[in-house]
Amino acid sequence: MSQEMNAAVFKAAHDVRVERVPVPTVREAGDAVVRIAAAGICGSDLWGYRGIEPVEAGQVLGHEWLGVVEDVGTAVETLRPGDLVLAPFWSLDGTCPACQRGQSTLCDRGGAWGFGIDVGGGQAQAIRVPFPDATLIRLPKGMNLDVAMLQRLVALTDVMPTGHHAALCAGVEKDSTVLVVGDGAVGLCAVLAARRLGAGRVLIVGRHEERLRVAVEFGADVTLRDDDDAFEGVREHAGGGADAVLECVGTKDALDLAVRCVRSGGGIGYVGMPTMNPTLSVSQLFERSISFRGGFTPAREYIPDLLSDVLDGSLDPSPIFSHQVDLAHVADGYRLMDERTAIKVLVLPDWLPTTRPG
Amino acid sequence: MSQEMNAAVFKAAHDVRVERVPVPTVREAGDAVVRIAAAGICGSDLWGYRGIEPVEAGQVLGHEWLGVVEDVGTAVETLRPGDLVLAPFWSLDGTCPACQRGQSTLCDRGGAWGFGIDVGGGQAQAIRVPFPDATLIRLPKGMNLDVAMLQRLVALTDVMPTGHHAALCAGVEKDSTVLVVGDGAVGLCAVLAARRLGAGRVLIVGRHEERLRVAVEFGADVTLRDDDDAFEGVREHAGGGADAVLECVGTKDALDLAVRCVRSGGGIGYVGMPTMNPTLSVSQLFERSISFRGGFTPAREYIPDLLSDVLDGSLDPSPIFSHQVDLAHVADGYRLMDERTAIKVLVLPDWLPTTRPG
Repeated sequence: MSQEMNAAVFKAAHDVRVERVPVPTVREAGDAVVRIAAAGICGSDLWGYRGIEPVEAGQVLGHEWLGVVEDVGTAVETLRPGDLVLAPFWSLDGTCPACQRGQSTLCDRGGAWGFGIDVGGGQAQAIRVPFPDATLIRLPKGMNLDVAMLQRLVALTDVMPTGHHAALCAGVEKDSTVLVVGDGAVGLCAVLAARRLGAGRVLIVGRHEERLRVAVEFGADVTLRDDDDAFEGVREHAGGGADAVLECVGTKDALDLAVRCVRSGGGIGYVGMPTMNPTLSVSQLFERSISFRGGFTPAREYIPDLLSDVLDGSLDPSPIFSHQVDLAHVADGYRLMDERTAIKVLVLPDWLPTTRPG
Repeated sequence: MSQEMNAAVFKAAHDVRVERVPVPTVREAGDAVVRIAAAGICGSDLWGYRGIEPVEAGQVLGHEWLGVVEDVGTAVETLRPGDLVLAPFWSLDGTCPACQRGQSTLCDRGGAWGFGIDVGGGQAQAIRVPFPDATLIRLPKGMNLDVAMLQRLVALTDVMPTGHHAALCAGVEKDSTVLVVGDGAVGLCAVLAARRLGAGRVLIVGRHEERLRVAVEFGADVTLRDDDDAFEGVREHAGGGADAVLECVGTKDALDLAVRCVRSGGGIGYVGMPTMNPTLSVSQLFERSISFRGGFTPAREYIPDLLSDVLDGSLDPSPIFSHQVDLAHVADGYRLMDERTAIKVLVLPDWLPTTRPG
């Protein structure tokens, strides 16, 4: 009989429960099994939670996680039990043409954790990893895994690389005037990313005072409320528009605001997951020569550099985590996110990450 | 009494006539007056001709031209009467923030020739140039201006840089698989541009056998008819889609084809002027991480390099000119373009360009 563990299981909209499921095992020679040290609840987890995106009942949730390698198959080359590893939100084989081009989120054999009934989720005590050599990033041995560090590291699995992707796609460079649309965890990380790339002036449009306070802590110069005056505010603080707009929401309203607020010849980095099939007017883009780049973040490619900055103390996205729950109480975490009480929730499994499980 | 000259004047839809208008003169100290050596009729001239875009009656037409400097104001620094000069389709002041960023078609004080009643057109015997030092490119003294060379040079004013812009915006690089959508003069130049940037395989979708023959002459490997099977053809010849799609039409159908035919993670360069306000689905772009860049071509920035290749014989866009008319018969040129009998028409004024007018 297989061993069992705790995992956050999707039952139905607004119904996530911790259930006992089989502990994953090495199935293929190239697999690893990782015991989870910490996971995050992501804004995109809410689409399924709210019934907007279909999720199969029984799915183990969670695509943001790190942990300790528990077991490896015979074909795994670079990892050994006991290694502390961080996963990008998307697995990758490392060998396909997309991976070779550095576009790992287009890998045919990879996919987001927790999407697809046979793909493990990180809001659990352990997870099976199909391409560990290509996918996982090894962390330094013996590092101090206090909660703040776990928060920083979980931020590196998805939202921080996504903010960075928005900044790169929008063309942020030294002294750019940057507008971030959206004050969710990705938008806040986009502020950090823009600052890190040398932006001269950073504006953010959002809806939540608490989040906009974090944006200021992260280096935003101007915070604007997402209302009819946001456009006027951008004009006031960024003249003819922002050089780079980092669109971190994905609704039609947010995209329209991005197009209005980018200067002629500027760039929009689009990383907000499109909601309700928004469209763009090509004429509007054309007449002001606006570039529009983005999509799924190739997090695997960005993590090593971002990790290096986290480890040397120059990058700290931990303030995006406003709440923390034990895995047993993960449903509370979803509820706090859904109510927008929490910016982001850290999920800790019910064991100490610095102790190798026996 | 002012002197008069011949010019192509817009009267009404489908009614372009050669009329006598005042010869332009130096009005500001920074002006030059250029006697036209050759001009082109552009696909975009047809929008006004067909009544799709409003054009004011009395407008002198034409944004593609080269000629000989006839007179300069006292503030003109780099040009002297007798200099042979080529104009990008858009004038520019060279000093504004957009010009400093290399985005001259966003220059506030510049604009396209022949758009605006006070802005001269090139389908005339002479033209006033407001910012000649910044705008005009001087050609070598004593160069042989036979018709083929005039064709190459007029191509450099707009359609060849626009094809090049499409290729750069789409991200064409060495060995890229490229799809050009549209077999107009810009699409054909886009084939040349893709080849020039080292594309590995070039496909083109078009509607006209004669134009597709020119595409093959320019280096296209595969020509596809723009019908229901075009997508299947691209799949057959470019596997999972083209790395780079150069969208040179601007209709909803052409844009949709571009999105369908680009590979995941690929780029679309959009230079076709949008017709009938087409829209794009952000979800479609997002789920395949497609980048979308383009707009008005900063031709001034591209012309020196392209000119250098024309002068050394490695670039020859002249085959896009299928017909030639004297200025007196410019209305025939419009008719030939409108009927799609001509790919592109060269307009020669009624004087010899190698002779300085007295």
